[in-house]
Amino acid sequence: MSQPSPSSPAPTLSRKRVFFTRLSSTLGLWAVMGTGIWMGNTTVVLTVAVLLGLAGSWEYAKLTRDDEQPGFARWGLLLSTAYWVATLVWYARHGEALPFAADLLLLAIGTQGAFLLCYQHQLEGAATLRRIFTVLFGWVYTVLLYAFLPRIICLPALGEALPPNGIMLLLFVVMVTKFTDMGAYAFGVLWGRRKMIPHISPAKTWEGLGGAFVGAFLAASCMMALAGENLAPLTWTHVLILAPVLCLLGVTGDLAESVIKRCIAIKDTGHAFPGIGGILDLTDSLLFTGPVFYFYLEFLRRA
Amino acid sequence: MSQPSPSSPAPTLSRKRVFFTRLSSTLGLWAVMGTGIWMGNTTVVLTVAVLLGLAGSWEYAKLTRDDEQPGFARWGLLLSTAYWVATLVWYARHGEALPFAADLLLLAIGTQGAFLLCYQHQLEGAATLRRIFTVLFGWVYTVLLYAFLPRIICLPALGEALPPNGIMLLLFVVMVTKFTDMGAYAFGVLWGRRKMIPHISPAKTWEGLGGAFVGAFLAASCMMALAGENLAPLTWTHVLILAPVLCLLGVTGDLAESVIKRCIAIKDTGHAFPGIGGILDLTDSLLFTGPVFYFYLEFLRRA
Repeated sequence: MSQPSPSSPAPTLSRKRVFFTRLSSTLGLWAVMGTGIWMGNTTVVLTVAVLLGLAGSWEYAKLTRDDEQPGFARWGLLLSTAYWVATLVWYARHGEALPFAADLLLLAIGTQGAFLLCYQHQLEGAATLRRIFTVLFGWVYTVLLYAFLPRIICLPALGEALPPNGIMLLLFVVMVTKFTDMGAYAFGVLWGRRKMIPHISPAKTWEGLGGAFVGAFLAASCMMALAGENLAPLTWTHVLILAPVLCLLGVTGDLAESVIKRCIAIKDTGHAFPGIGGILDLTDSLLFTGPVFYFYLEFLRRA
Repeated sequence: MSQPSPSSPAPTLSRKRVFFTRLSSTLGLWAVMGTGIWMGNTTVVLTVAVLLGLAGSWEYAKLTRDDEQPGFARWGLLLSTAYWVATLVWYARHGEALPFAADLLLLAIGTQGAFLLCYQHQLEGAATLRRIFTVLFGWVYTVLLYAFLPRIICLPALGEALPPNGIMLLLFVVMVTKFTDMGAYAFGVLWGRRKMIPHISPAKTWEGLGGAFVGAFLAASCMMALAGENLAPLTWTHVLILAPVLCLLGVTGDLAESVIKRCIAIKDTGHAFPGIGGILDLTDSLLFTGPVFYFYLEFLRRA
C-alpha cells in the first residue's frame, strides 16, 4: 500500500529497490521457516516461532524504553522469556500447547510486579501510570496475542487416524496474512492513488485494500488446492469465509502497529531484516489474524 | 493503617466516626454475602460476585473517563458486561467456571476493538496511546484479576465423596484479605506512628503492617478451626504458608489502588458504600490475593 513521499528524488528507482530488498528478506525468512515446515518437525517450527516472539518483545522494550526507570522494560522481558521457556518445556514434556492458565498466571504476576516496581520511586502521576500501562500492554500485544501462533503449531490431531496438522494450519494463516500484506503492497505501488486513511498511515490506498483481498483469496485458494487434505477441519467453504475475515484483520493489525509507531514517533520499529523493518513489522498483522484463526479452528474442532 | 491529617479539627472523634461507618458498611455487605453463603447456593454467591465485578468496571470507567472520546470507556464496559454474562450463562449450562480461553478471546477482541476505535480520529500521540492502554489495563485489572474470585466459587468438588467447597474457599480468601485490611487499619489507628511508604500512601505505617499480619493469621486460623473439614485441600500447614503470603499480597494490592488513585489524583474511587469508598476500594486487595490463592489451590488439587 506504500507510495513514495512527494520529496523523494527518484521515486521509481527507490520503489523498486525497497520492493526487491523487501522481497529478498521475505524469501530468506521463508527459506528458514520452510525448511522446518518441510521437515515436518514441530519442535523446530515451534522454536523458530518462539524466538521470533521473544525478538518481538525485545523490540517493543527498545521501542518504549524509559531511561529514567529501565526496570519496567526489564520486567516485561523477564516475563516474556519465562513465558516462552515455559512454552518450549511444556511442549517437550506434554506434547501440547501451554494451557491458557499460564497466560493468566503470568498476567497476574506481571501486574503485581509492575506495581511493586513503582513503589520504589516517588509517584509521578501520569508518568507512573504510563510505565505500568506500557509494560502490561507490551505483554498483551507482543506475548499473549502472538502466542496464538505457537498454539496453532501445537494443535493435536483431529482424530486417531489423522496426523497432527498444526504446522500446515500455521502455514495457512501465515500465507493468507502475508499475501494480504504483499497484495496490498504490490497493488499500492502499482496503482495506489486514492488514500484510504491518511491520518493513520499516509501510504495506505483503497487500491491497496483491493490488492489485499486478491492476495488473501489467492493464498487461501492455493493452499486449499495444494494441501487441502492436510488442512482439516478446513474445507472450501471455510476458505470463502476465512479469506476476507483474515484479510480485514491483517489490514487492521498492520494499521495498529502504524498507530503505535506514529504515537511513539518512530518510523521503523527496528532493522532486524533489511526492507521489512523490525520483527513487529513482520508480525503485526499476524497478531490480529492469529487469535481469530485459532478460535475459529477450535470452534470447528469442537462442533 | 490510616491516621488523621495534622489539620484535622477533632482527630479522635473523626477517627471514631470513620471507623464505625466503615465497620457498619462492612457488616452490611457481609450480611448480604453471608446469606448467600449460609444458603450454600453457588448461583446466588456467584451472581453477587459478578455484580460486584461489573460495578468495579463501571467505577474504573468513571475514574478514567475521557470526555473527548468516550467510546473507549464504553468499549471497556461492553467487554466486561459480555464477560460477566458469559460467566453466568456458562455456569448455568455447564456447572463450572468459564474456561480461561474466554479471557484470552475477549482480550484479543478488546485489543482489536480499541485500535479500531482510534482509527476514527486524528492520532494524538501520547493521548491516543493512553486511551488504548487505559481501556486494556482496565480490562486486566477490573475483570481478569477479579475473575479469579468467581473461579474459586465454581471450583468442582475434590472427589466424588466430597461436596463442592468453592464458596468456603472463597470465604477463606475474603476473610484473610479483609482481616489483613482491618488489622492494618485498627493497628494503624491505635498505634500507627512510623510511616512505611509515605511517597505512595501517607497513612500507611509499620504498626499497621504488623496489624495486617495479626489479622491475616487470626482469620486463617479461625476459618481452619471452625470449618477445616470444608476447606479441603487446605490443612494447618497451608494456613502457615498462606496467611503471610496473602497478607503481603493484600497490602500490595491495597497500595496498587493507592498508586492508581494518586496518579489520577482522586481521593476516593467512588461512594458506593459509606466509609469504605468505592467498589474498587473494597476489592483492591482481593485483586492481588485472588489469583495467587486460585493457582495455589489448583497446584494442590493437581499434586
